[in-house]
Amino acid sequence: MGAGPGAPDLLTLRAARLLAAADIVFHDALVHPETLALAERAEKVAVGKRCGRHSTVQAFINKRLVDAARKHAVVVRLKGGDPMLFGRAQEEIDALRAAGIEFQVVPGITAALAAAADLGVSLSRRGVSRNVVFATPRVGDGEAASDWAEPLVAADTGAIYMGAGEAAAIAAMLIARGKPASLPVVAVENASFPDSRRWTTTLGGLPRLADEAFSGPVVLLLGEALRAAAADPDRVRTEFLEAAEAHLLRAAM
Amino acid sequence: MGAGPGAPDLLTLRAARLLAAADIVFHDALVHPETLALAERAEKVAVGKRCGRHSTVQAFINKRLVDAARKHAVVVRLKGGDPMLFGRAQEEIDALRAAGIEFQVVPGITAALAAAADLGVSLSRRGVSRNVVFATPRVGDGEAASDWAEPLVAADTGAIYMGAGEAAAIAAMLIARGKPASLPVVAVENASFPDSRRWTTTLGGLPRLADEAFSGPVVLLLGEALRAAAADPDRVRTEFLEAAEAHLLRAAM
Repeated sequence: MGAGPGAPDLLTLRAARLLAAADIVFHDALVHPETLALAERAEKVAVGKRCGRHSTVQAFINKRLVDAARKHAVVVRLKGGDPMLFGRAQEEIDALRAAGIEFQVVPGITAALAAAADLGVSLSRRGVSRNVVFATPRVGDGEAASDWAEPLVAADTGAIYMGAGEAAAIAAMLIARGKPASLPVVAVENASFPDSRRWTTTLGGLPRLADEAFSGPVVLLLGEALRAAAADPDRVRTEFLEAAEAHLLRAAM
Repeated sequence: MGAGPGAPDLLTLRAARLLAAADIVFHDALVHPETLALAERAEKVAVGKRCGRHSTVQAFINKRLVDAARKHAVVVRLKGGDPMLFGRAQEEIDALRAAGIEFQVVPGITAALAAAADLGVSLSRRGVSRNVVFATPRVGDGEAASDWAEPLVAADTGAIYMGAGEAAAIAAMLIARGKPASLPVVAVENASFPDSRRWTTTLGGLPRLADEAFSGPVVLLLGEALRAAAADPDRVRTEFLEAAEAHLLRAAM
């Protein structure tokens, strides 16, 4: 199950209903407490992968999921964003299949689309962008670091997950492969939250992101489609907040 | 506002709340009746773009949105999938900005992620896929048809929207540019619905899709990550349906 980008009300109705029916929930570290609270009846188990080697931790999670499915009627594995896009769901799915466990996958809003919504900037745009490349420099154990970014070179719009820490290397590599240093880039931290932060820059200015202290996940958006956001970030931000507050006010009335 | 891929319960909680507060809803043709029914108080206006030239129809929609925002407290523009990914939201956003109208964008589940969830196949996969390219061959008025697919050539995984009608041309072009004819391809129609259909094939076999009669939107997924779905579609399908039915049964108890 995808928990979405972070804001609890960007969960789907289906996910909310299944959480309410869950006996046990295995969740990543970044899932919002209000989202977990929807699983009223369930035991909650944090299974972050921040410590230890990936393969060891993953094997342990797989085993716990299979064991839980044999014991409980409704087991939820809750991941940030969408499970099928940089959510590392496949190994867990394969483990369930191998054990003959029935399952369904509930999709979630992925961070880049939440960031685009925050900015009020479409990632595709008539006459400007007809493709969007989602990529991550993150590698698994023993995996080669090469070629992950190849489609970004030809992309109209790019969305890079888990890349803020390598912003300088990413910028240098894309410029070396022919992307213009003037290409608009927006980094969005904590997309979908009222306290989300953004940095509007260019590919040439992206290395300066290394000086920032991030407190949450960051998605990098790049391409000509982002020029509108780069030109007028404050206005966009103000509009979004005012509109959100106005809606909340009306909903409360 | 994104309505998600089609199944009414894949709407977000935020979208459901705002629909309930809406005075008027302008919606695309493909939005589910149950989703529209959430807007209990609202006037519903269909504004499909199936007839007429795009630019004329778009200008008309823009004007109606601005006029409605001046008259009503909460105006919703409801689009299938996610508004920022092939949802043509930018022209409407620009019109609202130009008119000084406050707004927010509510993201939705996009079709390719719903299709991946249906299949139980992750679009990214450790050691196999570290990037996913979303692209569409659809062009606007007077727009060149070239280069939309360039990032797909280098992609680990590709997701093509609104491309089923041009499947033969897409396959020929990708093979000519060096993709193997044996590359797994899955076409998913009506992703997220209980009656969704799928065709598992290869890039070389993709032209046969022209013989099919589609009754709903189709997303094409391609890449080595899809090999699992191509190998065993029936088992995946059965598992998904059984799990969904079991969950519904439990939820009803």
